[in-house]
Amino acid sequence: MRIVIIGGVAGGMSAAARLRRLSEETEIIVLDKGPYVSFANCGLPYYLSGEIANREDLIVQSPRQLKKRFKIDVRTETTVTEINSDNHQITAVHHGLSKTITYDKLILSPGSVADKPNIPGMGSADYVYALRNIPDVDKIMAQLSQAPTRVAIIGAGSIGIEVAENLIKRGLSVMLIDAGSQVLPFMDPEMAALISHELSEHSVTLKLNTQIDKIDRHQLTLNDGSQIKADLVISAVGVRPNTALAQAAGIKTGELGGIIVDKHYQTSQPDIYAVGDAILVKQLLTGQLVSIPLASPANRQGREVADVIMGLPRENRGGIGTAIVRAFDVAAAATGLNVAQLKRAGINYQAVHTTGQNHAAFYPGGKPLSMKLLFEPQTGKLFGAQAVGEKSVDKQIDILSVAIKSGMTVFDLPEFELSYAPPFGSAKDPVNMIGYAASNLVEGLSDNLQFDQLEGAIKDGAYLIDVRTPGELKRDGKLPGSTNIPLDDLRDHLAEIPKDRLIIVSCRSGQRSYLAERILKNNGFKVKNLDGAFLVYSTAYPERIEH
Amino acid sequence: MRIVIIGGVAGGMSAAARLRRLSEETEIIVLDKGPYVSFANCGLPYYLSGEIANREDLIVQSPRQLKKRFKIDVRTETTVTEINSDNHQITAVHHGLSKTITYDKLILSPGSVADKPNIPGMGSADYVYALRNIPDVDKIMAQLSQAPTRVAIIGAGSIGIEVAENLIKRGLSVMLIDAGSQVLPFMDPEMAALISHELSEHSVTLKLNTQIDKIDRHQLTLNDGSQIKADLVISAVGVRPNTALAQAAGIKTGELGGIIVDKHYQTSQPDIYAVGDAILVKQLLTGQLVSIPLASPANRQGREVADVIMGLPRENRGGIGTAIVRAFDVAAAATGLNVAQLKRAGINYQAVHTTGQNHAAFYPGGKPLSMKLLFEPQTGKLFGAQAVGEKSVDKQIDILSVAIKSGMTVFDLPEFELSYAPPFGSAKDPVNMIGYAASNLVEGLSDNLQFDQLEGAIKDGAYLIDVRTPGELKRDGKLPGSTNIPLDDLRDHLAEIPKDRLIIVSCRSGQRSYLAERILKNNGFKVKNLDGAFLVYSTAYPERIEH
Repeated sequence: MRIVIIGGVAGGMSAAARLRRLSEETEIIVLDKGPYVSFANCGLPYYLSGEIANREDLIVQSPRQLKKRFKIDVRTETTVTEINSDNHQITAVHHGLSKTITYDKLILSPGSVADKPNIPGMGSADYVYALRNIPDVDKIMAQLSQAPTRVAIIGAGSIGIEVAENLIKRGLSVMLIDAGSQVLPFMDPEMAALISHELSEHSVTLKLNTQIDKIDRHQLTLNDGSQIKADLVISAVGVRPNTALAQAAGIKTGELGGIIVDKHYQTSQPDIYAVGDAILVKQLLTGQLVSIPLASPANRQGREVADVIMGLPRENRGGIGTAIVRAFDVAAAATGLNVAQLKRAGINYQAVHTTGQNHAAFYPGGKPLSMKLLFEPQTGKLFGAQAVGEKSVDKQIDILSVAIKSGMTVFDLPEFELSYAPPFGSAKDPVNMIGYAASNLVEGLSDNLQFDQLEGAIKDGAYLIDVRTPGELKRDGKLPGSTNIPLDDLRDHLAEIPKDRLIIVSCRSGQRSYLAERILKNNGFKVKNLDGAFLVYSTAYPERIEH
Repeated sequence: MRIVIIGGVAGGMSAAARLRRLSEETEIIVLDKGPYVSFANCGLPYYLSGEIANREDLIVQSPRQLKKRFKIDVRTETTVTEINSDNHQITAVHHGLSKTITYDKLILSPGSVADKPNIPGMGSADYVYALRNIPDVDKIMAQLSQAPTRVAIIGAGSIGIEVAENLIKRGLSVMLIDAGSQVLPFMDPEMAALISHELSEHSVTLKLNTQIDKIDRHQLTLNDGSQIKADLVISAVGVRPNTALAQAAGIKTGELGGIIVDKHYQTSQPDIYAVGDAILVKQLLTGQLVSIPLASPANRQGREVADVIMGLPRENRGGIGTAIVRAFDVAAAATGLNVAQLKRAGINYQAVHTTGQNHAAFYPGGKPLSMKLLFEPQTGKLFGAQAVGEKSVDKQIDILSVAIKSGMTVFDLPEFELSYAPPFGSAKDPVNMIGYAASNLVEGLSDNLQFDQLEGAIKDGAYLIDVRTPGELKRDGKLPGSTNIPLDDLRDHLAEIPKDRLIIVSCRSGQRSYLAERILKNNGFKVKNLDGAFLVYSTAYPERIEH
């Protein structure tokens, strides 16, 4: 049997290696249009600063090693120009020479291609690059060796932020430009704002809500009319499935052009399979077909399609999507659905925010950890989670990703028996705590109000009590329209609180205000807790805080 | 309603605070025999070195704060001497004055007491201490201020190791003595050996298999006849449920004297509940009643018993147990059952070891991560997991604890969508990888042999092939009785390998030998992979390695 694989990075190479482990006899041919296979595409930004010091570290395995160890026939710089599924044949071009190769099974793992923003002048500018592969990074490194000083990055997603961090570390002046109103569209805006803040703290000039009208002779004209100089421009506005070849072969595609596969990774054509960034997968929480262009699913899919072809019982269970990015000292991560995705899917949800420390407060070195959980209001079924902080963001999100993918509810989270010693966590871990907070909401012990609902509620007559201490208000600022009654004095001031109005309580992180909410509710008031309290509100609306 | 709580640390104080949040009217009285409630007992070892610098950081909340904020009546230095359940009364003694207090509901949260080793002379030595509470730590700190130089610690469990680390950091000479054959009985021996190694690397003198026959005038006589001097002795041989009071009141107890409660934390006496270290809980994997004396479950139970008393739907689902300890630069953690527990429960299991890095190898700063997974051989149902390493041990074990507690199998682990960017993890996360390794075993693609079975197998005629490179053998040493055929040459040497004998393959970590196993199996050989390969074997039997 001959299996031909188009694309030799994550999905394709995982498939090839697993196929060999399952069978010594199968002929395995991997074709890749680039000069390298099995390279570390997620590592490319870190090579720009020298954090990954050696270029060879980016290349995980060479064709020679793959031949020796796995008996895989890897052909680089080989572009497949046609798939003829009727004849089980492909046409491949290497250095101008065209050749047909027959296959018994064909696996497509062509990955994704960089979206190109449609900016007049961009096509002809020889200082604009994407960062998708080793040749890209070589070109950028060549430019960097000419000592540029000003870099503009278009697109404030994960790649744009990673590139910004690494170029700042190289000592460059960096402007990060995005047409949207926030960085990191996989996060909700108030969580992403923590990353915007971190970027600004580290001298990245962030231009949100900004489009580029024109690129001309190292000058970018922005839609506010201003002009900026850039020695180098990196375009990182996103990717889409690389499926022109599949479409030309009549293989069915869906949204964004992604290849449609069944749960055994079979495309609409017999004996043709597809994995990785190029395919659509079932979003487990919405049931919709979506693109999740990430390295981890691609690797898993590659291994699974090998199993399927070799007759092992394996199927694609679908995905929820988990992403993380580092911005200087802080990490931001999300799993499952965010608010924008929930709204798009028409799903009713409730949110809860917590801010605590990554480990026990009495042990030194703890760092603030901001978390958000999204769930079904009636049942507590988990939809999504987000976290931002200096430490243990990956841990919290990974734990929650398991809970979400396996269909758990907020009531399961307090049950998790997570490792605790003072250097590592808390006796009540942040995951347990956000589970308690959400359980209180589902069980009706607490009601909350989101940061973006506060202004409207106050207009509608609500009475806002801030239960922080006067010292905290002085230090951090005051919420507009709030009355200050410190928590420990609250029971002595019940008579001053209007009985006939909705009371909204806030503190710093939401924990003391929850206690205030309970005290007031148990005394017959109608109360809502400002979710995430001062910390979330002041992150979302720093300009509204009164100093 | 008056609720009386005996014991004001983790379980008792969590119950008290939750009760107040649920009800303003309930009278809540907390009695504690010690001078402090709500203190950070897990933080005590770190105060010895000054890593936790201020004594007041160990005291989370004072009775005054608890009164002000929670309207809780906290009475310290108050020892309950009798429970009279017929009359709903207890007798409490404070500074010699005895008093009866009636209750509507009584919650017992008396915690555990330190086991005392039965060593002649120990009782009369005034330089022997346990480390269980603030008065203990005060006494030890007073001794330390007199500039001792030699400390003996009895018991190489978590507390003993934490104390050893902190006293070494203080510049003392530390001997750690244990009667057992390994440190950290919650880990399997070959995993615990990694911690023994770390302790030795940091100048802790470790004496395993060692009993103390006598303590006399700062001299410890060991069972090998040798004598050692100690200015100070810390006893940390373990704890048992503190249940003398409950037993005297006729409350039913079980193994180790632990209080037996139903799933609503009710004891055998009406209106008396119990939580925390003092109770037995259902081990979810064996169904047996066990003692899990840890802070996290105690806190959860305290909150849950408050819910139960206030009529909320809550029950104790049982536990699996998760523990972590830091020893200098390395952490060791375990969740679920270990081999000793599985054997005791008569459960058939299979083990798999992996050693990788905590994040992508191409990104700098990765640290070795040793993991072990225990599962049901036929179904892959997860039983337990252990990890040792410098980084992300807590993360891996927390993820696996969720999987184990929710009844998952090894086939679920590869499905986990864990956060990946090069600084945080790998596209194939260590949890995914150990899931793949275990799945291969359950599906019969791989067979393994444990480190402690190798010698016997070779005696029975097995042929051991080490597929590392000659350079690695020279650097790290040779497995006794092994033939070296580097993996990449294996296919060229098939003719030299005996067809009629069991072939055992090994490499450094087990990954290359798995590939060798597949090559050989696909060529008709009968093969087993030495699980964990050279790394696990040489950790378990360093003396057997040939240099």
